Parts: sequence; C-alpha cells; structure tokens
Amino acid sequence: MVNAETVSRVLNAAQHLGYRPNSLARGLKMSRTFTVGMLIPDLTNPLFPPIVRGIEDGLDKVGYTVVLANSDNDVERERTIADLMINRRVDGLILATARRQYPLLDALVDVRMPTVLINRTTDDPPVSVVTGDDHAGIGLAVRHLAMLGHRRIAHIAGAQNTSTGLSRYQSFMSWMQSEDLELDRDLIVFAEWFQEEPGARAFAQLLDGGKPFTAVVAANDLIALGCYDVLHARGLAIPGDLSVIGYNDVPFSDKFHPPLSTIRIPHYQIGLKAAELLLAAIEDPGATPISVRVAPTLVERDSTGPV
Amino acid sequence: MVNAETVSRVLNAAQHLGYRPNSLARGLKMSRTFTVGMLIPDLTNPLFPPIVRGIEDGLDKVGYTVVLANSDNDVERERTIADLMINRRVDGLILATARRQYPLLDALVDVRMPTVLINRTTDDPPVSVVTGDDHAGIGLAVRHLAMLGHRRIAHIAGAQNTSTGLSRYQSFMSWMQSEDLELDRDLIVFAEWFQEEPGARAFAQLLDGGKPFTAVVAANDLIALGCYDVLHARGLAIPGDLSVIGYNDVPFSDKFHPPLSTIRIPHYQIGLKAAELLLAAIEDPGATPISVRVAPTLVERDSTGPV
Repeated sequence: MVNAETVSRVLNAAQHLGYRPNSLARGLKMSRTFTVGMLIPDLTNPLFPPIVRGIEDGLDKVGYTVVLANSDNDVERERTIADLMINRRVDGLILATARRQYPLLDALVDVRMPTVLINRTTDDPPVSVVTGDDHAGIGLAVRHLAMLGHRRIAHIAGAQNTSTGLSRYQSFMSWMQSEDLELDRDLIVFAEWFQEEPGARAFAQLLDGGKPFTAVVAANDLIALGCYDVLHARGLAIPGDLSVIGYNDVPFSDKFHPPLSTIRIPHYQIGLKAAELLLAAIEDPGATPISVRVAPTLVERDSTGPV
Repeated sequence: MVNAETVSRVLNAAQHLGYRPNSLARGLKMSRTFTVGMLIPDLTNPLFPPIVRGIEDGLDKVGYTVVLANSDNDVERERTIADLMINRRVDGLILATARRQYPLLDALVDVRMPTVLINRTTDDPPVSVVTGDDHAGIGLAVRHLAMLGHRRIAHIAGAQNTSTGLSRYQSFMSWMQSEDLELDRDLIVFAEWFQEEPGARAFAQLLDGGKPFTAVVAANDLIALGCYDVLHARGLAIPGDLSVIGYNDVPFSDKFHPPLSTIRIPHYQIGLKAAELLLAAIEDPGATPISVRVAPTLVERDSTGPV
C-alpha cells in the first residue's frame, strides 16, 4: 500500500525537480486513465468533426474521454504531441496524421502504445486501420462521369506522401484504363496539399496547359473548391463548361455554388469503427491488427452534367 | 532530492491502486507542463478552427502545446474534461464553452487554475475574457440593412443562456430603436442553438407567423444557413424576396449560395489575444482580469440587397 499523501508529496517533489519521465523511451503502460488522444493534421478541414464525433460516441459509452491536438501537418509537432499525450498517460492514440512513411508510428509500436490509424494509412501499417475504400470511390466518380459522356477527364491529385493522395491517383489511372477512357498524363496535376488554395494553383496550371478536357476528378472536396474558385474567376460555368466532382462529401459541400457532386465517405462510421478497434487494442495489445475499408457512395448534385 | 526511479515506482503503485488525485478539490498548482487545455462547445461549427489557430500561434512561440476537447455543449462533460485536464496538469485553460451562469468557472477560480474565456463570457466573469464586440457588430448589420431601405427587419436570436445570444438580441432591439426602425416583437424568434437546423425551425415559424418583413439578422452564420434552407425550399429568392445577414464570417460563408453578407469577427486575433492573456495569468495568478472586445467589420456579399 502506498499512502495517498505520500504519493502526492512525491509527485509534488518530482514536479518541482522538473522530472519528466520519457515515456516513449520507457514504454511502460500503467493502469487505465480512460483518456484517448487523437491527432488531427488540419483542424480547418471540415472532414474531421464528423470523424471525431464518431470516435467520441464510440468511446463515451465505455467512459472514455477524447483529447484532440492539431498538428498542422508538422511531423515534429506530431512527435511532441504524441510524447506529451503519453506522458499524460493516455490509454491509446488515434492518428489521422499518417504519412506513407511514418516513423512516429514505429516509435509508438515500440513502446506498445495501443494505436489506430484513421482516414490515412502507411504503406505497411503495423496497427489497425480504418479508411474509406479509395479504389471503389474513384471508380464511382470516373464511371459517373463516363455515364454522362465524358471521355477526356482530368485529375487534380493530392499529396503523394499520403495514402489517400497516392491511392486516389493510382485508382484514377486504373479506372480510366479499364473504362476505356482517354488517359492523358498531361491531364493529371498534383496539389501540394488537400486544401483550396493548392487545389486552385494546380487547377490553374492544368487549364493553362491548354489540353482539352470536359470534366475533373478532384482528390478531395477542398481541392474541388479550389477548382470552383478558378472557374468562377475565369467566367466558366459549372457544369456547363466543365464538370467537377469532389471526394469526401464534407459538411457544407452541399452549400457550395453549385452544390458539389462528390463521393460520400461515412466519416462518422469510420470514427465509430476506429473507437471499437482502439478499445480492442487496449484490451488485448497482442491482438492481430486489422484493416477496415468502408464503402463509399456517389452523391450526385449539380456540379456534374452531360458533356 | 527524490530519486527518479523511486518516483516512477510510486507512480506505478499509485496507478495500480487506482489512485487519482482530485485536483479540482485539492487546488494544487505544481510546476509547468507547458500544456494548455481548450474546451470547445461544438467542433462542427467552423467558427472554432481559426480561433484555435490563433491560440496555437500565440502559445507555440513560448513552447506551449494546446490540447483540445469537444464538450458537445454538455455541462457534465465540460466538468469531466476540465477535471481530467487538471489531473493531467495543464498550466491553464481556455474555455469557449461559457454560459451566462457557469459554475465550472467558479470551481476553476477556487483552485486557482489560470483560465481565460473566449468568444462567450459569463454575466460577471472573474477571469480575463476575449470576445467580439456584439453591440458594434449588430449595429453594423442593422445599419447596413437600413441603408438598403429595410424598415421591417426580423431577428433570429441565438441561445439566451449564452452571452452572445443575449447580447446580440439586446443589441438588435437597441439598434432598431435608435435607428427609428419598426421594432416588432413578433419579428423576433429564438433558435435553440447556434446551428443550421434550429435556425431553420425558428425561421420557418417566423415565416408561418405571416407578419411582413423584408430582411433578417441571424444571430450567427449557421442560423443564416438555416434561413437559406427554408427560403430555397419555399422557392423564395435571396435577396430578391428577403435579405439575410449572418454573424461571424465563418470559413465557407463566402461559398454559400448566394455568398453570405455577414459581420466579420477577427477570430484568429481573438485566439492570439486569449493566448497572451492566459500566459499573463499563468505568470501572475494575482493579476487583475481584463476584458477585451475585438472590433467587427461588415462584409457585404450577395445575400443582402435593396428592398
């Protein structure tokens, strides 16, 4: 037995001495705190609130609280936050920040921190993962445009150091070929990040290239919004001059002008599932990691039309 | 001197015994952890990311990390999260969750936790506060509509247990009177919460009341979006049939159809200022609390027009 007052005195003294155990190096996992940490790469992307809501609902019922941190897509910051959360003794982590190569994840696995990846994954994940099925989703987008008669379709790809950026790009090429459409590498450009402004820059570059096309598949809804900005600025009509389809169906994409056709990913369900897998990993750290891909659906709104 | 290994053993033992000090009751403040907690009432409101960004930028430069939690506007949950953050030894808290009566804040003051309120305040705040100037903001909205020739103007007020809901409602009545417009109490309805659906419900009720009006001041942009939904559904034109003005200028309000006229609150600056005041409170817990009101500006877009 340790007397509570003694513990308090020791804690106090340790703190005054500036003692801060390096949990990442130590790798100890003590008893439960019923707290889970979540890292978000970009709080300004409306993709994340529905995911967080799902995680919260999945963890609430078993008495867990979710603590969030925004990494602003900065690897150093992710490391600092993860270290801090471990020092504050979270029982597990949910990372929406994965890149295809992600040393932080290896460090977390080394110290046996129960971890689940959500939305994005690594090239070879050693933990459980919940993502949307990008291949199926891009298939829905390409076939929707093909049904409307489009043959020359462009792609604004996302960041290629992320699984979502890479798999949507790869899937775009696969579907264009298997659907016998005109795959032209000049009609594929890359946005530096999944945001409106990088999307607008990439799309302007595509338009300036001068090659004809009648539709564009954007790697996410914010990139699609960047396409809108350029088209509006140049006085081109959506979908009269060009059809645009996004990806994710984020909140507010139905409010855009025109309302955005997109691929709906059930983000709330992804969050719920990640909560379930994290609880399983906390219960049994030796359990085999599993990978869950959630099926997307097509949302037809007003930004896509016949050629 | 306390040996680090001893501390670790004691911590371990304490954790195994389920020992969890009640910091709210104990009120101990130990040495710095360079962590600040922030409570957000509604993660789905795009109002908060720019505020968080400002706080992060204000704290980053002095080595602080911000940890967020979403309370979903639940008082019990706010208490649980605050308790948890204190137990994890945050150096201070920034609350965007205040209600006019807010017992949690009194408890935090009792244990001398450095705290700053942001966006919303209490009726009589014992800590520093950073908000937008609601009186000035509603004045900009009402005078903008008056300049366009509107005389019968409605208000969809927000939740009256929040300072923002109350002060925008009070300011609406003051400005309508001082501008010699037709203040009709039947043209004021209350949305239960600052969200799209409660806004739509309140606005539908207003329209069904049958009293004539030509413009509406919504207590925030999401409530304005609820007005849009009802107007679109009933085939009424914005601003042809009715002018709508929102409040906040949240991200995406320029993308709505039509782009929303609104009152811009410099949320990033509010976040920066709150960070500065929190650091001051951490440095000197005895410092006199101050209240900062940040000036709003009018953003004229396409949802308001002449009568």
